[in-house]
Amino acid sequence: MKVAEVLHMNGGIGDTSYSNNSLLQRKVILVTKPITDRAITSLYTSLNNPKTISIADLGCSSGPNTFLAVSNLVKAVDSARKKLQRRQSPEFQIYLNDLPTNDFNTIFKSLLPKHEEGFRREIGEGCGLCFFNGVPGSFYGRLFPSNTLHFVHSSSSLHWLSQVPKGIEENKGNICMATASPPSVIMLYYDQFEQDFSTFLKCRSIELVKNGRMVLTMLGRQSEGPFCHIWELLALALNDMVAEGFVEEDKLNSFNVPLYIPSLAETKFLVEKDGSFTIDYLEASQIHWTEYNNDGYNVIGRCMRAVAEPMLVSHFGEGIIDEVFRRYEKMIAHSMSTSPDYSQLIIVTVSVIKM
Amino acid sequence: MKVAEVLHMNGGIGDTSYSNNSLLQRKVILVTKPITDRAITSLYTSLNNPKTISIADLGCSSGPNTFLAVSNLVKAVDSARKKLQRRQSPEFQIYLNDLPTNDFNTIFKSLLPKHEEGFRREIGEGCGLCFFNGVPGSFYGRLFPSNTLHFVHSSSSLHWLSQVPKGIEENKGNICMATASPPSVIMLYYDQFEQDFSTFLKCRSIELVKNGRMVLTMLGRQSEGPFCHIWELLALALNDMVAEGFVEEDKLNSFNVPLYIPSLAETKFLVEKDGSFTIDYLEASQIHWTEYNNDGYNVIGRCMRAVAEPMLVSHFGEGIIDEVFRRYEKMIAHSMSTSPDYSQLIIVTVSVIKM
Repeated sequence: MKVAEVLHMNGGIGDTSYSNNSLLQRKVILVTKPITDRAITSLYTSLNNPKTISIADLGCSSGPNTFLAVSNLVKAVDSARKKLQRRQSPEFQIYLNDLPTNDFNTIFKSLLPKHEEGFRREIGEGCGLCFFNGVPGSFYGRLFPSNTLHFVHSSSSLHWLSQVPKGIEENKGNICMATASPPSVIMLYYDQFEQDFSTFLKCRSIELVKNGRMVLTMLGRQSEGPFCHIWELLALALNDMVAEGFVEEDKLNSFNVPLYIPSLAETKFLVEKDGSFTIDYLEASQIHWTEYNNDGYNVIGRCMRAVAEPMLVSHFGEGIIDEVFRRYEKMIAHSMSTSPDYSQLIIVTVSVIKM
Repeated sequence: MKVAEVLHMNGGIGDTSYSNNSLLQRKVILVTKPITDRAITSLYTSLNNPKTISIADLGCSSGPNTFLAVSNLVKAVDSARKKLQRRQSPEFQIYLNDLPTNDFNTIFKSLLPKHEEGFRREIGEGCGLCFFNGVPGSFYGRLFPSNTLHFVHSSSSLHWLSQVPKGIEENKGNICMATASPPSVIMLYYDQFEQDFSTFLKCRSIELVKNGRMVLTMLGRQSEGPFCHIWELLALALNDMVAEGFVEEDKLNSFNVPLYIPSLAETKFLVEKDGSFTIDYLEASQIHWTEYNNDGYNVIGRCMRAVAEPMLVSHFGEGIIDEVFRRYEKMIAHSMSTSPDYSQLIIVTVSVIKM
């Protein structure tokens, strides 16, 4: 599986699109907002009336969340500007990054004049111009010239690896690091995460200006276990399909998702090991969700479908998708009703300063 | 007609896509290459070993031409670097701009790792990293922060206006400024061009650094007449369809294309009137084409279809398209065989330096 070609959310704006099924990722952005607000306010205050502020959102995907994070950042700067009584607002150079297969056309169409006016109204008068750029490419490589970024934000993206770790043939019946995975598989997943996250930090340390800031959030785990319940349930649904003969066992055994769920301690360790950043703030928080919204809409099921469908289609073909997610939604509903603890996700957030 | 929503080339990579039907625009880029090469070489030489060079291609469209212009520019810098015996190459921040409805997804997919290696090989070892950004928006407005661009290139784009001029109801039977247009219509077209081109210059003069360069090419005309033969032939094809009852006369009368074909003198006048740029070079050149390529493929007909189809579909619906272009291709073939003079286009090129 070539990650750069199949790791993308469902495009467009239809029923199963990521654009219409990303409430969970939205919640993550909102939970982290106080931390991002504080980081960019502190950055702006430390700069001497800058002409331009360059902000990159890495792993922006395509949908309402794409603009949510950056518009929050712009608003935070503008409100700091008013408090500091600086007359001149900076201009904002905004970079929206994701893999080249991401649906940038849908993002860009929301920049048509009729939508843009809405954005401007929301941001408010007196705020500097915002210039939007789409940046296609993997954030596990260089994306920007040296020494040009002021602020990097990445939400719900860095748990995605650059590739499925090599040598995890033993991870049979599982589709990522799971309770039942052999320790050697967990180790190989960690090694891949270490390599990817370290590359990420190295690239960003080149691209950020001195004292530039970065706030990263990703799916996390309690330090004891490698669990991510919602992914294990998806594996269960697939195993069910194998048991009933709809999917070949070998096909399932050879399917693994390039996903690593780090602990707070691992994140801290790798940032410190890199050595280019001071940690300003580090936190693991719990996100709770209710399994259905008011319309009987299975939030997690739909959200997971928008995320996982392109990978599943690429490996198993289109035929099984509806059935897999029918079963998956049932399992989620059942699981949540029997173990309320499962209705939460852990999010690791780290806010750092470039030395 | 909302220009920002319908003025885009045919997307994708199919038979009638712009991507596969843009040989003419390619020829324009190649004809102008000595001028762009000289301009960027001179810019690079004047800079004191810059860390980053920012290049914007405005109206980049989607297809092989998108990368042709900028890769030529990067190569020119790299060859100047070797001549100047500068050891350290700059990094290149490359901005590809077009309207938000342009097919950026197709551009970005050609930046997948497998394609990118080809690009790197072509550019050569030792050359600095190139970072690609998509910039969705009209170039008749601000697109970049103040004082950040080194080089602006725009090829075969600035003859497109921001809107069809208001008040040209009298332009019946024509679809743009044509031999048979009333003088008042020609005047209104010119006024729109003056306003748009002046806005363009004003925005770029804010965005370019001092001594930054800009090379612009657009369709042009001999100073005597407002003719653009290939567009007049398209009007003829549409008039034919009206005469035979396939298209309503009113429908044709209310269709006008937001296109102005300036003369060299007009271009010079407006650059001087703006006052922010020194003209380094100004030229009108002729581009010749043969009506068919070796495969009996009507180059101009296909090229015009890739450009005009979205506008025609938006006004007339899809039903007439194949028939219009069947007739149009015939007319082109006939016209070229009877008047060889018609098998040329005039291109106006202006190379300027920001004061």
